[in-house]
Amino acid sequence: MEANVADAAEAERTQVKVDLGARSYDIKIGRGVMDAAGAEIAAVLPGARLAVVVDETVAKLHQKAFSESLNAAGLEHTVLTVPSGESSKCFREFERLCDEVLAARLERGDGIVALGGGVVGDLTGFVASAVRRGMSFVQVPTTLLAQVDSSVGGKTGINARHGKNLIGAFHQPALVLADTAILDTLPIRDFRAGYAEVAKYGLLGDEPFFRWLEANWKAVFAGGPERDQAVARSCQAKADVVAADELEAGRRALLNLGHTFGHALEAAVSYETERVVHGEGVSIGMMLAHEFSEKLQLIDEVTVARVQKHLTDVGLPVSLKDVPGQLPPAETFMDIIAQDKKVSRGALTFILTRGVGEAFVEKGVDPALVSDFLKEKLET
Amino acid sequence: MEANVADAAEAERTQVKVDLGARSYDIKIGRGVMDAAGAEIAAVLPGARLAVVVDETVAKLHQKAFSESLNAAGLEHTVLTVPSGESSKCFREFERLCDEVLAARLERGDGIVALGGGVVGDLTGFVASAVRRGMSFVQVPTTLLAQVDSSVGGKTGINARHGKNLIGAFHQPALVLADTAILDTLPIRDFRAGYAEVAKYGLLGDEPFFRWLEANWKAVFAGGPERDQAVARSCQAKADVVAADELEAGRRALLNLGHTFGHALEAAVSYETERVVHGEGVSIGMMLAHEFSEKLQLIDEVTVARVQKHLTDVGLPVSLKDVPGQLPPAETFMDIIAQDKKVSRGALTFILTRGVGEAFVEKGVDPALVSDFLKEKLET
Ligand SMILES: NC(=O)c1ccc[n+]([C@@H]2O[C@H](COP(=O)([O-])OP(=O)(O)OC[C@H]3O[C@@H](n4cnc5c(N)ncnc54)[C@H](O)[C@@H]3O)[C@@H](O)[C@H]2O)c1
Ligand SMILES: NC(=O)c1ccc[n+]([C@@H]2O[C@H](COP(=O)([O-])OP(=O)(O)OC[C@H]3O[C@@H](n4cnc5c(N)ncnc54)[C@H](O)[C@@H]3O)[C@@H](O)[C@H]2O)c1
Ligand SMILES: [Zn+2]
Ligand SMILES: [Zn+2]
Repeated sequence: MEANVADAAEAERTQVKVDLGARSYDIKIGRGVMDAAGAEIAAVLPGARLAVVVDETVAKLHQKAFSESLNAAGLEHTVLTVPSGESSKCFREFERLCDEVLAARLERGDGIVALGGGVVGDLTGFVASAVRRGMSFVQVPTTLLAQVDSSVGGKTGINARHGKNLIGAFHQPALVLADTAILDTLPIRDFRAGYAEVAKYGLLGDEPFFRWLEANWKAVFAGGPERDQAVARSCQAKADVVAADELEAGRRALLNLGHTFGHALEAAVSYETERVVHGEGVSIGMMLAHEFSEKLQLIDEVTVARVQKHLTDVGLPVSLKDVPGQLPPAETFMDIIAQDKKVSRGALTFILTRGVGEAFVEKGVDPALVSDFLKEKLET
Repeated sequence: MEANVADAAEAERTQVKVDLGARSYDIKIGRGVMDAAGAEIAAVLPGARLAVVVDETVAKLHQKAFSESLNAAGLEHTVLTVPSGESSKCFREFERLCDEVLAARLERGDGIVALGGGVVGDLTGFVASAVRRGMSFVQVPTTLLAQVDSSVGGKTGINARHGKNLIGAFHQPALVLADTAILDTLPIRDFRAGYAEVAKYGLLGDEPFFRWLEANWKAVFAGGPERDQAVARSCQAKADVVAADELEAGRRALLNLGHTFGHALEAAVSYETERVVHGEGVSIGMMLAHEFSEKLQLIDEVTVARVQKHLTDVGLPVSLKDVPGQLPPAETFMDIIAQDKKVSRGALTFILTRGVGEAFVEKGVDPALVSDFLKEKLET
């Protein structure tokens, strides 16, 4: 059984197609795919000039190699650097980048490349969607989170005063290059955070994949071929959901497993990443989703324990108690959840589960039940 | 023949459908359609809360009646006011409106309404496209230009330091309400400017309509049923082109008749609207396009004279000589044309014509010919 899973992953290894009709594109995955970035980009955007957006950290580590690959393919490009970190997903950087892309005299057939994590990808994608009402866009994700999640699906955007990712566009890339070797320079905490999203794909709809991860996670972390397989399998899972539901009307909501609680936690600590980064919030949120499902008698304690063991094995936090410092009371969490953008006309929507790989969307969950549950979790 | 044209317009009178598959919507046209705005909006966005964006001038004249109509239909709404004029199409207002819409706690199913001319429509549409990655959008155009042009087709956006309309999105409204009575308060200069776009639809592809306008323009200006007919016919013309070519790959370019020269003129006077407003630039640009077509022996002087007579009759400028003050040399115009966003990889694209109603897209026009032509026009 595990062999089958590995084989299936193997078959998908180098390429995942995101099937969106005229806007379809490939995700190319593997160690060293970035070395051929120039040729790959030239193949999808022949004759294009490029603007490459990168954050300061990634620029230091990888810009030189990337530019060399573009130069080797004869691709003229301008490099635009933004500060590292979430605060670059703002109106100010959006405006500045739009202006810089125009100053570089890029025309409509030219392209904008995001070289970086989810922050650079989201910001750059929104810029690409808006300049001249839509320029070609290429993603070169450099974090595990970006490779398995944010670079797939076309969601782009920036943060507003009133919340994260509230301003943006759906804008699909023409190509995604996920170089798994580039993750070797990623701090372990960021790798782990991205891994929470990998585990999520197993938990939400693919029990064999979750089982495979239980057996192979060490190799995924170490950077063997298993890492490529895990990335490919994750991309495929997200691509399948996205293809079925591009504009997030229905099934796509499953990808939010762990995210309602996770977002609330991130907001509750005012997005202080020293305390919780997104993937850690997702890990804790997924645990809470399973525990809440247990409380609703949808799953038993054995399932909950299984999920908890794997997340703990890889070093992810699994409880609100794992968050350093004081957390606000349950009421604050409830307020945040009610304001969450996934709220539809006042009703609470949660992703619950009937077992590993059997998540489902439950609309109209009773807020009182959630509130009681959170009180327990914050007290015990 | 004229009767036929009038009948055809009559039949389309109250409603034009913009056929874009799942994103199709209706344009409702006529005197007083705004009185039923509440009921009409409630029908397409049942249960929605609204943010209404309006400029200061229109707010004074029409906000009260509009709000009353919304209230009568039980539509909760927040009014957001922007300064009148082109300068509101900027990043600052974009950010402010996004924040205000979020502050009003609008959710994804709620709607944003543009009550105003093309400035408010373009800005508001871009805000609607971006907040929560796309909110429902309703246009209530209050200028002739907005009714026959900017509210149809889904182009939205703001201006950048490097040029007009360079940042934006394609975002289709759910409904357009074009109340032709609201144009009664519009200054005559703005009405005339919008009329240039009406005449454009005849010139680019509908000789019978142009002939009908030659006979009926006074009634269009006076506000009789002919005004409704002219608006409906124009919307239909634009809707047909847009439906055939939503993302402006090909045929949609015909709508730029008169606009390459027109934009260059607007830029050449630094968008000083005391000298030239957009529609005046289009009128002069259309004349230049016809004269340039004559120079290329595509049409004869009789056709040129016919076009000139009609535009002059309605009071529109028809020559660069009609622009008050000094104009820059032809070289400046050429530089502006080369930078124009409709330039594709360096080649000059123009809309030329083989007769009234027979415009076509000519790619790769020799810049030297254009430059010589402009020199003549600026000197004689
Ligand atoms: N668009 C979507 O669908 C989607 C989905 C999930 C998350 N997101 C967004 O993604 C963002 C988080 O992404 P992230 O976790 O990649 O954050 P990030 O982009 O901030 O990257 C994390 C840190 O790692 C550094 N870094 C990136 N690549 C590196 C490398 N190869 N080596 C060393 N350091 C490297 C960055 O400089 C940064 O400091 C959030 O803003 C979130 O909202 C978007
Ligand atoms: N999106 C598109 O496809 C498209 C097409 C053409 C033009 N445009 C844009 O449209 C804009 C121009 O539109 P516009 O000419 O409507 O300009 P506008 O919106 O500035 O309106 C012109 C003036 O008329 C006033 N006004 C509006 N309605 C009125 C009324 N009923 N009574 C009295 N005064 C009224 C306004 O306050 C303003 O001062 C430009 O920014 C242009 O780029 C967009
Ligand atoms: Zn996530
Ligand atoms: Zn125009």
